[in-house]
Amino acid sequence: MGGDFGPRSIVQACIASLIATPSLHLTLVGQPSLLDELIASHSAVDRARLTITPASETIGMDEKPAAALRGKPDSSMRVALELLRDGKVQACVSAGNTGALMALSRHVLKTLPGIDRPAMVAAIPTQKGYCQLLDLGANVDCSAENLFQFAVMGSVAAEALGVARPRVALLNIGTEDIKGNQQVKLAATLLQGARGLNYIGFVEGDGLYRGEADVVVCDGFVGNILLKSSEGLATMIAMRIEALFKRSLASRLVGALALPLMRRLQADLAPARHNGASFLGLQGIVVKSHGSAGVEGFQSAIARAVIEIQENLPQRLHGRLEDLLP
Amino acid sequence: MGGDFGPRSIVQACIASLIATPSLHLTLVGQPSLLDELIASHSAVDRARLTITPASETIGMDEKPAAALRGKPDSSMRVALELLRDGKVQACVSAGNTGALMALSRHVLKTLPGIDRPAMVAAIPTQKGYCQLLDLGANVDCSAENLFQFAVMGSVAAEALGVARPRVALLNIGTEDIKGNQQVKLAATLLQGARGLNYIGFVEGDGLYRGEADVVVCDGFVGNILLKSSEGLATMIAMRIEALFKRSLASRLVGALALPLMRRLQADLAPARHNGASFLGLQGIVVKSHGSAGVEGFQSAIARAVIEIQENLPQRLHGRLEDLLP
Repeated sequence: MGGDFGPRSIVQACIASLIATPSLHLTLVGQPSLLDELIASHSAVDRARLTITPASETIGMDEKPAAALRGKPDSSMRVALELLRDGKVQACVSAGNTGALMALSRHVLKTLPGIDRPAMVAAIPTQKGYCQLLDLGANVDCSAENLFQFAVMGSVAAEALGVARPRVALLNIGTEDIKGNQQVKLAATLLQGARGLNYIGFVEGDGLYRGEADVVVCDGFVGNILLKSSEGLATMIAMRIEALFKRSLASRLVGALALPLMRRLQADLAPARHNGASFLGLQGIVVKSHGSAGVEGFQSAIARAVIEIQENLPQRLHGRLEDLLP
Repeated sequence: MGGDFGPRSIVQACIASLIATPSLHLTLVGQPSLLDELIASHSAVDRARLTITPASETIGMDEKPAAALRGKPDSSMRVALELLRDGKVQACVSAGNTGALMALSRHVLKTLPGIDRPAMVAAIPTQKGYCQLLDLGANVDCSAENLFQFAVMGSVAAEALGVARPRVALLNIGTEDIKGNQQVKLAATLLQGARGLNYIGFVEGDGLYRGEADVVVCDGFVGNILLKSSEGLATMIAMRIEALFKRSLASRLVGALALPLMRRLQADLAPARHNGASFLGLQGIVVKSHGSAGVEGFQSAIARAVIEIQENLPQRLHGRLEDLLP
């Protein structure tokens, strides 16, 4: 029921996903009459693969996580997570309030053994492909142990997405040992001692985009600022190019050819908006689609959930954590 | 003597600056024989406006600040700062080791009364012009009081650069009061109570590039990551567009027209590389040019120093701090 555009674009994305992925079954959680109506407006829906589970309440995009946790026992978000906890579905995808989704996920699903706090991860485009960046804002203050756990989770997630021996790095303001704050320096020591993890050291902000690592670890404050400033910069560059191309007839012709490329690039560079962010470290698969993602974005979030189901990500994480954590 | 390209490009930038600014006098600090030789290779130099002060030692780009502080009493950096302290020059511009320059500046010049730690600030391009972003890496861990002082300094610097009643914001992961870490929340309380400062609240990473504030304040860890990741992203976008334009003959024609625009944009988007960063809060004007800035970058850094001399920035800062600090 959430997201900036409400359930209409979500239903549309669900139907597109069912067509794209024949093995997929979806359960929509929310107000049955509204959802039924939205589904009915689409032709050729295989209703055997699309279930509706009623939930009478909705969590607002600006509601505080604590309020979502205490009140509203029948919110669509909570009911969806309970279906996941009870094994009735294999993953939960939401475009709703991020803070509420994280708080409810922790409460309903619980974290994996050895994990203090779940993290949010998304694939960020680099010169050489993608890197998994975490945490993206779930954890504002992080200890060295938190950062260590994020590194392990990010490494397993990158493997599940097809990267062999992912290069794991800590985001820092320099690459020398003496650089950075206490938490980062301590996390480096922990990671240097971790066998079975391909820890490569510190990476700087520009090194991230040069593709120096497959997994980049930071606290949620830094990760959120990096992600949102990157989205803002990509948008600004696209606008400036558009403006340049509009100045003269010749440049307008150039622009007509170049703009579709720029728009595509911009979508690539807003990865959380486009691809969705996974919550890692929970006893279950939860993918957060950006509130303003639109149809294509929510479809990408469902696709990521499907991969995580196929790769059995929480189980794999659990196994690696048992090996790596003290 | 510093910088990734050594004194050759610095001498070139100095000569270009002397031509561009008739009232300018420059003192080059370093090895006289080398500097004389470099100057001699340029014709039409007004030697009456270009002095050489000898310094026998050089601080390496990877040298630790503590070592630069304790050893090397006759380094070019230290001698230049001593000329500034003794009133023989009005500003110091360097392309050398940032950490060493900050440590030596604090030691030789001292901070202004009421300032615990100087900050590094640079002008970042936004959708609406520029914002002054600080700190960019001089202070890894910051208290709420540090952030408050940065806000005051940034505001005065923006005023000196021509912005009336600069809008001052704290960089955060959300705009609601409950968002952020303890330091940021506490700094917000301090800023809300500061009369004479146009504090507008929190700004997010994308809001910075939308131009929501004229001064954006954060700790040096976050600022450094934001700046370097922005440079990395701008470079990556430029490379991708270049690659797109090379794919076909038609797009190659488009590219021939669009690439100069893109390169210009890229220079705009690497502001610290391009414009230099000022150290604020010292009893003297110090501007740091990016190590790999090249001729144009070092010339911009000199130009910024000239503006700060004309605006009497340290004096103005001192006056405002007396009004605003408890």
